[in-house]
This record gives sequence, structure tokens and C-alpha cells, in this order.
Amino acid sequence: MRNTFGNAVSLTLFGESHGAYIGAVLDGLSAGVPVSEEEIARQLTRRRPSSLLDTARAESDRFEIVSGVFNGKTTGTPICILIPNENTRSADYDYGRARPSHADFAAYKKYHGFEDYRGGGHFSGRVTAALVAMGGILLPALKTLGITLGTHISLCQGHKDASFQDAEKDLAFLQEATFPVLDQEVGEKMKQKILAARAEGDSVGGATESLIHGLPAGLGEPWFDSLEGLLSHALFSIGGIKGISFGAGFDFAAMKGSEANDAWRMKDGKPFTETNNNGGINGGISNGMDIVFSCAVKPTPSIAKEQETVNFITNEETTLAIKGRHDPAIIRRICPVIDSVTALVLCDVLTGRYGSDVFTKGLSLCVTD
Amino acid sequence: MRNTFGNAVSLTLFGESHGAYIGAVLDGLSAGVPVSEEEIARQLTRRRPSSLLDTARAESDRFEIVSGVFNGKTTGTPICILIPNENTRSADYDYGRARPSHADFAAYKKYHGFEDYRGGGHFSGRVTAALVAMGGILLPALKTLGITLGTHISLCQGHKDASFQDAEKDLAFLQEATFPVLDQEVGEKMKQKILAARAEGDSVGGATESLIHGLPAGLGEPWFDSLEGLLSHALFSIGGIKGISFGAGFDFAAMKGSEANDAWRMKDGKPFTETNNNGGINGGISNGMDIVFSCAVKPTPSIAKEQETVNFITNEETTLAIKGRHDPAIIRRICPVIDSVTALVLCDVLTGRYGSDVFTKGLSLCVTD
Amino acid sequence: MRNTFGNAVSLTLFGESHGAYIGAVLDGLSAGVPVSEEEIARQLTRRRPSSLLDTARAESDRFEIVSGVFNGKTTGTPICILIPNENTRSADYDYGRARPSHADFAAYKKYHGFEDYRGGGHFSGRVTAALVAMGGILLPALKTLGITLGTHISLCQGHKDASFQDAEKDLAFLQEATFPVLDQEVGEKMKQKILAARAEGDSVGGATESLIHGLPAGLGEPWFDSLEGLLSHALFSIGGIKGISFGAGFDFAAMKGSEANDAWRMKDGKPFTETNNNGGINGGISNGMDIVFSCAVKPTPSIAKEQETVNFITNEETTLAIKGRHDPAIIRRICPVIDSVTALVLCDVLTGRYGSDVFTKGLSLCVTD
Amino acid sequence: MRNTFGNAVSLTLFGESHGAYIGAVLDGLSAGVPVSEEEIARQLTRRRPSSLLDTARAESDRFEIVSGVFNGKTTGTPICILIPNENTRSADYDYGRARPSHADFAAYKKYHGFEDYRGGGHFSGRVTAALVAMGGILLPALKTLGITLGTHISLCQGHKDASFQDAEKDLAFLQEATFPVLDQEVGEKMKQKILAARAEGDSVGGATESLIHGLPAGLGEPWFDSLEGLLSHALFSIGGIKGISFGAGFDFAAMKGSEANDAWRMKDGKPFTETNNNGGINGGISNGMDIVFSCAVKPTPSIAKEQETVNFITNEETTLAIKGRHDPAIIRRICPVIDSVTALVLCDVLTGRYGSDVFTKGLSLCVTD
Repeated sequence: MRNTFGNAVSLTLFGESHGAYIGAVLDGLSAGVPVSEEEIARQLTRRRPSSLLDTARAESDRFEIVSGVFNGKTTGTPICILIPNENTRSADYDYGRARPSHADFAAYKKYHGFEDYRGGGHFSGRVTAALVAMGGILLPALKTLGITLGTHISLCQGHKDASFQDAEKDLAFLQEATFPVLDQEVGEKMKQKILAARAEGDSVGGATESLIHGLPAGLGEPWFDSLEGLLSHALFSIGGIKGISFGAGFDFAAMKGSEANDAWRMKDGKPFTETNNNGGINGGISNGMDIVFSCAVKPTPSIAKEQETVNFITNEETTLAIKGRHDPAIIRRICPVIDSVTALVLCDVLTGRYGSDVFTKGLSLCVTD
Repeated sequence: MRNTFGNAVSLTLFGESHGAYIGAVLDGLSAGVPVSEEEIARQLTRRRPSSLLDTARAESDRFEIVSGVFNGKTTGTPICILIPNENTRSADYDYGRARPSHADFAAYKKYHGFEDYRGGGHFSGRVTAALVAMGGILLPALKTLGITLGTHISLCQGHKDASFQDAEKDLAFLQEATFPVLDQEVGEKMKQKILAARAEGDSVGGATESLIHGLPAGLGEPWFDSLEGLLSHALFSIGGIKGISFGAGFDFAAMKGSEANDAWRMKDGKPFTETNNNGGINGGISNGMDIVFSCAVKPTPSIAKEQETVNFITNEETTLAIKGRHDPAIIRRICPVIDSVTALVLCDVLTGRYGSDVFTKGLSLCVTD
Repeated sequence: MRNTFGNAVSLTLFGESHGAYIGAVLDGLSAGVPVSEEEIARQLTRRRPSSLLDTARAESDRFEIVSGVFNGKTTGTPICILIPNENTRSADYDYGRARPSHADFAAYKKYHGFEDYRGGGHFSGRVTAALVAMGGILLPALKTLGITLGTHISLCQGHKDASFQDAEKDLAFLQEATFPVLDQEVGEKMKQKILAARAEGDSVGGATESLIHGLPAGLGEPWFDSLEGLLSHALFSIGGIKGISFGAGFDFAAMKGSEANDAWRMKDGKPFTETNNNGGINGGISNGMDIVFSCAVKPTPSIAKEQETVNFITNEETTLAIKGRHDPAIIRRICPVIDSVTALVLCDVLTGRYGSDVFTKGLSLCVTD
Repeated sequence: MRNTFGNAVSLTLFGESHGAYIGAVLDGLSAGVPVSEEEIARQLTRRRPSSLLDTARAESDRFEIVSGVFNGKTTGTPICILIPNENTRSADYDYGRARPSHADFAAYKKYHGFEDYRGGGHFSGRVTAALVAMGGILLPALKTLGITLGTHISLCQGHKDASFQDAEKDLAFLQEATFPVLDQEVGEKMKQKILAARAEGDSVGGATESLIHGLPAGLGEPWFDSLEGLLSHALFSIGGIKGISFGAGFDFAAMKGSEANDAWRMKDGKPFTETNNNGGINGGISNGMDIVFSCAVKPTPSIAKEQETVNFITNEETTLAIKGRHDPAIIRRICPVIDSVTALVLCDVLTGRYGSDVFTKGLSLCVTD
């Protein structure tokens, strides 16, 4: 499916960093879902470069809803959103010198030199603006079903953020945070590391933690379309994500079954688990607990420091100091992208499970015992 | 797609732990690929319980190729393999008491009590035998293209195996290893931990590392169908895998761009990178270096120790000591499953990229500059 | 997708005419749907050769449900049905002489000679037995929602059957008919033509008409996944079908809009149309009227008469008189196959629209205004 | 998949008749395919209303290529084309009175009144402009492989056009024809019928015949993804098409096997058939002969004559005389739409069979014996 993801609800991406527009088409969302330009703008603002922590490329992120919305609500037919590219400086890029850890060489082997290489072309993080704009429709749609989600920077250069404590409060907070951490002191230390890297012409990586609250039990499939499989499939297309884990993740390697297993108990007449090492998913299927997952984010490959590389057209070794305007870290701006992609997967799974009217029917009519 | 994975080459799984057969249908593989029952048996042997390190459930893993193979070669039409279930003891299972960290409760919420719960039913690790049998066709097919792969236990209870050094030699070794580690001393220590857990009625988790050698550059898609996305989608359906990372993975969180970036250099007239922190994938696309990824494996949830749980039919708290016959660790037996699933993804991607005759044409006719 | 059809509910076919088994895997049907071996056997009986009107190949159509059914009901996981091939005579076939209007030459160009050519291999009408067996699950499932369907021979060698008059009565009748026509006198004339063709070593074609009763309005998609598109996609894979039309079909060519349009009127407080030239579908979507479509069926290509052909291995012209055991007409036996394929499409569309529990919830809970 | 069609090459449609833009996203076409704005404009011109035979709605069909094309060639990433809607008169439409044989009522049952009903919304034939614009890329791409195709009006109000005689000459002629018939005298008679219908406030239906020349043998699948299945799936989404047949189609009903079978003979060292009753497809797979198919096209439902109908909001019977600006026949303008949709299916099948570089490699490197 390449640039399209999803079955019952699907999203198709198009556009290049330096083309006229980037955009996305969202198909399959229930008819009758309210669409607010403010919500879309709000998500785009979360992703927008806003300080020295981010790239200097100014993006106004004006957008236009081209189809699929009528009288402020989804029609049930494809929604296309366009975002014009404004602040492009193609002269910053040349062709043939592979930027290390970027897709330049891999793209050349795939597209044989026909790729639009300017600004990373279709590989550019710029394309995620279209994902985030759609998140401005999908996240509020989920909220009408009582499903909320959010992402914080959990780790950066040795600084570890607090974990989620109170899902509803933390998620509400993260939606508004300009630097999404749960412990502000830790956040300040992370910022210092990012600014220090910027000053050195370098960049830093990190990790994020996401939480989904309010998802009904019974979603996902035992084989292949497990919740973990669907989420990871979609999330790994976000540039820079190189690892995904659910619940205790790689910490399981040191655990015993008697420590790792989440014992079931009863509360308010319903089963729950006190620990959540499985991150809310058993056998690929949601078990009613919060879904918790982490993403490993590599340092922005574009750095000002001189690097060794090759020119893959001339097959000569050379060096490179990337000019352009780049983020010293993407872990801040990646959070709303993760949220939007997660929302896409959930809307897809919910629609597949409960049918194409799920968002206007509401879960109480859909979920049966 | 649920129980089917893949586009150009797809695999459909069916069967339950205590049904008559489990099996799989493989579709889209080139016509003319040699199929050897010995190779299939060999892969099944790698997965079979073989000592006190594994479950006591004896599985002969007899199999029958039902369709799609004629005169020892694939016909190009669907290949169905059946594996009869022989050694089943349904009396070991009852219904309603949720086994912690198993899918019992999630399955109940999804299937409303109609699921075949005996032995975990369709969720059972037993179903992976069908995946591994197909691996016995897919892995040799890849080998004819010069693509080899393998998996070792990289981490278990604090013991860390050596990393891959010499891809070809290590991969050849792992295909034959009964306990797949690269450093045998470390392996012995892991075994002691597994046997100790068994003695306690407990289980242990771990992590694996996989390597793909010989894959051409230029495979995968920038959005959604990235190599990382496709591999993780398929791999997360293996029960027990709770995390996947590529290259440096979660170690990126502590790195700077100048450390993380893989500098390009020339060797034998071709670009290569001396480090491989990106695990052979840039922008979702293979870059010609070895693909390297790790999987986090949780401890087997079935343990003999008494655990707290609930009966989700009566909604009462209760306890549970799992009898049955179970693996004190699945990290040994999961390695051939990871290999087979990885092979499926690669065959799918190669066929999508180079067309449906790729395995009989060979890569030299397919890959153009 | 090749040998798999369907999104929310999908069916995968495997097997060859002279292999050990043919079979199918059905995935995505609601958990809790009753499965009756009698119903499956009944559908297989409708398709079975039963007189001189059909092939002399005796097929007992024993079948085995391998997975996905537990305590007489679907589990919600994949259902595999196996049908052993018993009465095979491979000696009747040789390779290289293209049987005219069969797939022999096309298959050779596709599979390069690796195809299992015995008895038509995977192209054989034999494979439809697996479709019909699944129809024995799907048709009763639809009936529980109040949706019934059926097919009669509408045209054969100039003899035209009566049209549907009373949907419910006609459909009940066709389920039991050994020669599915609505006017028995016309049916006798058709039979005479078939027997005459048989006596001459020849065969005859025909056309069928199908009706779906009780389908809710609002199913299907405006673009690509129109009801017409989905039904035709699936139906054209039945060997011998070379045309499909909905409602007035090719008769529209001679009509004016004022004649063709189906005027809306009110009955019992609900809109309906007195004419049904659109065959119950407007803009690709069901409009609440009966769905009506016709299939053109070509004469069985296998005839005893000598025919001119080529040997595509030696590239020489030659002749051929097909021995084997073949149907002088397939229009009788094709009717249950059309019913089963139609049922598959409807179950897929209903599940996509109303969610994966639609068959146990019932339509009254699913369809909202 | 709803508004997306295709696997290896896929097309996603969006937009409504009276929205800001309609458009399409094309994904999966080889990198390096030349894109000519003149070719796109030329296809749009074929579809544009041009005389009293068509609607009076003036459409300039300006278009913008938004992505996926760089330096005049495809990049291999998604191509988005936008077409602004200019000449819209929303006041011509009201809501609730079902236009007979239009999708109004069916859409209401599907989208619950949230649909954009203005000008037919997403159901409008206007959306086909985006398909035809993409045809301006796909048809020339096929031509570089030696594959040409075209469509003529074969039947209208009792007037029957000549059949294809000389494929290459006829196809070249049809690409330029303003009224696509092979016999100009018959064409004049058809035009008279169309103008007469217009004068009466009525409309007429018809049938088309399409031919594909130069397609290699061996394309298509035995089950489900037969060439007939794929073509019909895509073609039935064109509004007004209500029947599709291949080769002799419904004429098979009167034929015997000995008449219907296409005998194989040798010419220039290659097998061919003198008759082509199978329309170039056996067992779902191309056999190397020209592909021939026909489409039944219903009369334009929008007519000025007063019609009986209901208001589905008030549930009252009423009448309707459609004002707006409408085509007295769509069989002329449907021909380039059929060509574009056919081109999409062929590009998809060729790319699936020969890989994603097929259009730059050329068939001689791809097709092997």
C-alpha cells in the first residue's frame, strides 16, 4: 500500500518538502464527525518550530480542507487537506553527496535518481504536517468516544522524565505543553542538552512514551493485525523512530514470569490489573487497561559538523557540513506526530470492529458483552 | 487482513492448539522455486521442544504439503501446509479463570465466549509451527538470491551474548545451533537461568538479535511500508514479542548526531558505512548494509507458581497455578519463528519490487542501476 | 490479493484438481455464527454432478472443518475447510497441447511450465467446491439477518426462463431445485438442448439471473468498492463467466432516461420503486430494492469433438479431441457457486459496514437512521 | 479500500462536484516515467463537454500537478493532481427529493444526511475528470511499453457501430475522435438520436466496446484477481455503467462449445487464435490476443421531463423536473473515462507482475519465457 495506511479508515500522504503543497487524504471516517479548523490549527501549532530548540525554517502551516467536510462535519467521503509549502530554499541542497543517516543513498537505489531530492523531498519531516493536520480531526473524534491519548519525552541524553501517574490529568496537560514532559525540572535539563548540541552544530536523540486511555477491551487481532503490529507499522514510518516497545518492553529481558505477569483483580465489578507490564495488550488485543508504548528516536541526522561521506554519482569519498535549517532534536516535535499516527490506527481499528458509523453511534451502542 | 500478512507474497494462518490441524497458505511466491521436505523438517526441528529448556509437550510436527507444489517445485499457486495436532490434553484447561498475561480475558471481550479456549486456541504458540514450516520454503528461496538471515538470543537474565562479527559464518552457525547464541559460555549461563526458573515453577524473558545479509539496497517505502514498519507489523504477531528496535534502537536516546550518523565510505567501488547504527535502513529503505534488529521477549506467562487472578465469567477474584506443559523460556524456540516471519516479509518486499518471477530470474536480472 | 477476496470477511482458496485436497480459509466472520455440516453438505449437493446433464466424474465431496468452529459455532478465527480429491484420473491429461478456450496456454505464459496442469490444476472448476462449502456457512448466516438470495438459469440456447415474481417463494424454491429454473417447461427444453449437445460431443452456454432479497439500503461505496464492482470482481473468478450486468444491463442501450429511471413511490411509510431497472443499486450503493444481476456463461470448453490447436512446447499445429469426463453445460452447477460467491461479498460488505459482530448482533441493532 | 483502487499502482479519488477542488493521488508508478501536461490536457479535452451533445456546464479543467513529478518525470512517490471546480451553481439543487436513478436516496441511507448533496457531491461525474487527468499519465506510460487501448460507442438507440478491424489504426483514430465511433455514418445517426432526446428533455443510453492491444500473455490471476475481475471492479465505479462483458459476452448464451472455442494456430512462430470469442482472456489471464470488452451505459438519469418521486426527509410523494445542466447522453464522454480506468488496471497488473521499475525497464527485460 506504500503511502496509504489503514483498512477501514485509511490515510494517503503526498507531497515533497519543496513542492507546491504537501497533503493527505483520509478515507472511511464516519459521516457526521465535527471538524474544527481550530483543532487542526492547534495540532499544527504543537508541531511547529517555536524556539531555538527547533529548526529555523518558518512554517505558517496554513491549510485548506479541500473535500469531505460539509457544514462543519465529515461527509463520510474522502477528506483532503492541503498545506502549501512556503519557506523553501532549494539552493541549500545539492545532489549526490549522501547525507549520513539520511535516505539520500537508499532513495537513489530505489528511484534511480528520479527522486525529488530538494529538502529530502517526500522523505522530509515536512510531510508529517499533513499527518498532524489529520490528527486535528482524528483526535477530537476519538475524544467523543471517551478515548484520549498523548506522548511525552521520556528520555533524552540521560535525563529521564517521570512516568504517567494520572492518565486523564497528564494527557490534558500534554495536549497544551510546549515542551512535553511530565516533570518540568527534567524538561529544563533536556532543553539545556538540546541547546548545547545546537551550539556545537550537533543534535541529540531521545525516547518518548505514549499512553492511550479509554480504549475498550477486545480490539486487535491475534495474528498479524495485533494492536502492537498495527501501531508499530504506522509509527515506524515517522522519520527518526528506530524502536518501539509496549509495556515493560526491553525490560522484560531481565524479568521472570512471576514478576512480569499482570495479576487480574476486580474493581467496581470489572477485572483490572494492578501492574501493566503488558502495556494494555494481551495476545495482540486490548485488555481494557491503558495502552502504553515507547518510541526510540534517533538524533536528527542533519548536523552542521563536518562529516565524512561519499558522492554516490561520482563514487568518490568526500565530506559534508549540512547547511540548511535543521532541528537540533526532533523529540519535541515528534510527539504530536506520534499522537496523530496513533489516532489514525485507533480510528481504523475501531471502525473495523464496530462499523463505519461508530463515531456517530458512540461506543455504548457498539460495545456488547 | 487479520490472519493474512503480505501483499505480493502473503501468508494466511489457521488452526487452534487442540483442533485437528494447524496450517498456513502461502500465496504469490514465484513458480519454479524448489521445495524440499527436508528443509521444512529442518526448520520445524529448530522450533521443536528438545530438552528441559522447553515444554514437555511432544510434537512430532509431521506435515503435509496439500497444494501449490508439483514435481518438487512451487507452481505459483497457493501452497497449503497442514500440521496435525497430536499431543493434546484438553483436560488441562478450564474456562473463565484468566491466565495472567495471556489473551484469555482480551479474547473473551473480542469473541464473547465463542473462542476455542483449549490450549490457548488460535492464540497458541503452536500456530507458529505453520509459520516455521513455511519458513522452510521461504528461507531457501531467499538463499538462492544470496540473502541469508538468522537470530540469536542476545540477552537473558542479565547475560549478554556477543554481537554478530562475521555475518556469513555466524548465520551458517545459527542455522544449526540447538541453543542459538554466538558465545557458548554466555549460552551456558543463560541455560542455567532457564533451568533454575523451571525448577522454581517460574519462567524468564530475554531479547534476540537478528541479522539479514545480502539484501539489495532500495527496498522498502518512505511512508508506512518502511522496512521497519513491515517487519515490526509481522513480528509483533509472534506471541511474547513486546519490543522491536533497529540498529542502535533505544541506545539512540543517549547519542548525539555526530556519534549516531553512519558515515559513508567507498569499498570495492561501492558505498558502505563503517558503523551501522541505522541497522541497514535509512528513510524506511534498505541501504545495502546488513539489516540488524532486536526483539524484546517477555517471560512465558504460563508458570506453575500460584498467581492471583479473576474468573471473568463469575466476576470473582481467585487464584491459579497453571498445570499443563509449558516452556520455562521461549527465547530459544522463538528464534526460528522470527527467521520465518522475517523471510516472509523479505519475500513479499522483493516480489513487490522486482515482480513475481524474482526467485527464478535471480537478482542480477532484476536489480538495475 | 490473488487467491484471497474480501476485506472485513475474506476467503482464501487453495488446491488443484488432482492434488490431495482442495480447500478454503474464511476469515473475519463474526464469532458465534452457527455452523451446520448439513447445510454445507446441502450446498455441495446442489453443485454435485447428478445426471447426464453433468460430468461423469463422481465426487463424494466429503469435507472436514479443520479450524474456526467450536461447539457448533464460529469462533471468530479462521475457518478452514478441506475437501479431499478422490476420483482423479491424471492419465487423461498431457501437457503442451493447448485445450482451446482453456487456460493452458495463458497459464504456461504465467507460470513458465511449473503449473500443475493435471485436470486444469488450480484453474479447475473443482476448486469451486471449496467456495460452495463455505457458502454452506455464509448463506445461513445471511439468512439469520433476513437476507436471502438465489440464482436460476435465465437463458440457454434460445430458451428464456421466467423472471423472478415472488422473491421469497422463488428463492426458497431455487434452493431445493435440481435444475434451477422458474418455469419448468422452459427447463425441460433447456435439458433437451444440453443432452443433445452431449450426444454430439459438444457443449452449450447460457446465462443466469440472481436475486438478493432483504439487503438493507446504504451498502457499497461510490468509487471503486461499489456493490457492482465488488460483486463482479468476485464473480468473474468463476470459470466460464464472461459477462455481468445489473438490472436492465445491456438493455439500457436501447432505452431513454424517461423509460429507464425508477420512479420513487411510498409504500408502508417507506420509499420504494415500482420498476427496478437499476437492479437495486444507485451510485454503487444498495437502495433497498432487490439486487438483481445476470451472468453470461460460456459453453464448457472441454468438448469431445476434434478441435484445431497448437502444442505450445513444440510450437506445432495439431488437433485435439478432449477425452476426460466433462460437463456438457455448467449453467446448472454454476448456480450454487454464484450464490456462494455472492454470499461472500455480502458478508464482507455487511461486516465492513456494521462491524465484526453484525451476525450475532442482528441488523436491528446495527442499522440506524 | 473505498476510494482507492489498485495494489502495486493505486489511485485515490477525492472531491465533490461543488467543492473547491476534485483530485486524485496516484501511487506506485515507476520513477522516471515522462509526464506531459499536454497529454493530460489532451485526455481532459476528450472528456470535456463540447457541443449540444453534452451538458452546458462549462469546465475549463485547469489542473495542477501538486507532487510526484520532478523535472518532467515521475519521482516514484505519490502524484497528486488537483482540478479546481469553477462553474458551480449550487442553487440548482435542493435536498430530500430523490432524483430517480441517482444515488440521492442510497447516499442518505449510507451517510445519514451528512453527505454533500450539491451537484451530486462525491457521486458526481465531475470526479471522473481527476481519473481522466491521471489517464493522461498512464496511457502514455503504457504506450512506451507498446500497449495501446481505446473505446468506441458500439451501440446507441438501435444503431450499432462497426467492430474493431485494424487495432492499431482504429485505436489511433479513436484517440483523436470527437465522437468516438468507427463508422461515421452510424455515428451521425446516433448523434441525431441524442439531439432528439435533448429536445424532448430526455436522455439516451448505449454501449461501448474497448480494445487493448499489445498486452503480454500471462497477466492476471486464476482466482479473484482475474483480468476480468480487476477490470470490472474498477470500471463499475464509473457512474452509469451497469454491465460489462468480455469477448462474446452474453452472446455465449446461444453458442455451442464448438462455435465458442477459439482454436489455436501458429503465426510467425507464435500461437494465436483466429477467433477471439474469449476477448483475449482465458482462466482470468491474458492469452496474448487483444483484450476486448463491452460496457452497458444507462441513460443519464438527470432529465428535464417531470418525474414521480418522493421526498425522503418528509416521506411524501412528489414530482421533480431536473433543472441544472446535464448531458443528454454520457456515452461520448464516458469513453476517455473507460480508457483511463482501464489504463490504471493495466499499470497495476503490469507493475505487480514485473516489478516497480517496469515502465523504465521496458517489457523486453521483464518478460521471460
